[in-house]
Amino acid sequence: MRYKLTIEYAGTKYSGWQIQQNARTVQGELQRAASEALGQPVEIQGSGRTDAGVHALGQVAHLDATKDLPPETLRRRLNDELPADINVLLAARAHPRFHARHDAVARSYIYQITRRRTAFAKPYVWWVKDELDVRRVREAARVFVGFRDFRSFTDDDPDQKSTQVQVKGLEIFDDEDLLVVHTEASHFLWKMVRRIVGVLVEVGRGTMDRAAVDRFMREPSPSVATFTAPASGLFLERVFYSNDPHDTPVRAAVRVGRM
Amino acid sequence: MRYKLTIEYAGTKYSGWQIQQNARTVQGELQRAASEALGQPVEIQGSGRTDAGVHALGQVAHLDATKDLPPETLRRRLNDELPADINVLLAARAHPRFHARHDAVARSYIYQITRRRTAFAKPYVWWVKDELDVRRVREAARVFVGFRDFRSFTDDDPDQKSTQVQVKGLEIFDDEDLLVVHTEASHFLWKMVRRIVGVLVEVGRGTMDRAAVDRFMREPSPSVATFTAPASGLFLERVFYSNDPHDTPVRAAVRVGRM
Repeated sequence: MRYKLTIEYAGTKYSGWQIQQNARTVQGELQRAASEALGQPVEIQGSGRTDAGVHALGQVAHLDATKDLPPETLRRRLNDELPADINVLLAARAHPRFHARHDAVARSYIYQITRRRTAFAKPYVWWVKDELDVRRVREAARVFVGFRDFRSFTDDDPDQKSTQVQVKGLEIFDDEDLLVVHTEASHFLWKMVRRIVGVLVEVGRGTMDRAAVDRFMREPSPSVATFTAPASGLFLERVFYSNDPHDTPVRAAVRVGRM
Repeated sequence: MRYKLTIEYAGTKYSGWQIQQNARTVQGELQRAASEALGQPVEIQGSGRTDAGVHALGQVAHLDATKDLPPETLRRRLNDELPADINVLLAARAHPRFHARHDAVARSYIYQITRRRTAFAKPYVWWVKDELDVRRVREAARVFVGFRDFRSFTDDDPDQKSTQVQVKGLEIFDDEDLLVVHTEASHFLWKMVRRIVGVLVEVGRGTMDRAAVDRFMREPSPSVATFTAPASGLFLERVFYSNDPHDTPVRAAVRVGRM
């Protein structure tokens, strides 16, 4: 029996999604919890990796169980075994050939920038002290939309054959203290969202102009690496499959302080 | 020169407000930061204590400085010295006889109960798994409003002469996953809010009725101690002084997960 899991996690205390020897990872915690909950060795296959410190509001994974458990029972048993910062939101029976990574048709991410110091938000934001020109940020964001080559916005990744990505949208929401970047694409390259956000913040500060962004897209340059936004502000928001309704309203992921 | 500070903090990593030898406290961190920022030994006097793990959205304190600094400069210098989970929201010049504790005429607290497991909220909520009857909770909440004796809702505190408290309001806000308790009073006894919330949750679960709550108010009983809600859900929201505008809108203190 194959199950599809939808999972939220705070990535702060983990060395990313992917299982590793001698490091706490989200996939590792899920495999341990599932093996306990089901009384058999279980392998968890995620839709993709997230880096150390990156969070998820709706990561998707699948697992196989020899038992046919009601999905809500599986969800409850998993959560009973999981640490407080990993939470299975939904468990559902899936087609035996459903694959969390291969079947995903799109992903969306949220990046949260805060414009004021707060006592509560640090693990979930990037605090940018300089004034940002939101109009300029929005204008530059348009450069990234479409089927484009993002070579300048990733590190060499042996698993990645092409650096062409179909970016479906990249919007900036100006929400009081927060500036929220929301983006959806066919897939994302390693560090791609954090590098786009890093460059957008440079543009907002006025230290880079739109022509420079255009140049990054035309000619690969290792210098964008200087502008990689910190992991703390990044959330994998959602993974889309071909039969899913496409209706996620975009809102801030985590709001802290008086609201 | 006397300054009034308004401070927010996440209490999770602190042994409460009050300075102690060999323990990290909020007052201790503020005194250290202020002494660094001002280059002189500084004493910080708060409006009152908060217990270990309790948060604040608007704690008030005062300090004296030999230098006459612009308040915004003082605020920035303090924040540069403070850890990320303590944040000075506002610094203002105060009357030389202004006293954060003696001059306070009222305080308000927020208590956050969540009705679902979330990966992000644990330090800021009490997760109650049982179904709660909000109508019954609201009805029982009325018992606490007025000038009443809260002996059953505190522990013996040598500093406390009387257990009579003027509770001005106690409202329950039903806000999707959150149930938010908001209360304002002349002052609060030690553990009082957490014990009121503990009893209200028992009422919501149906394991206690309003008559039992009435009895706690008429006859002191040590058994309420069984129902002390955890510190994590509690926020000191605001401290009121006689000349303040009285206009705080009550909303959730911290919202986490998709919003």
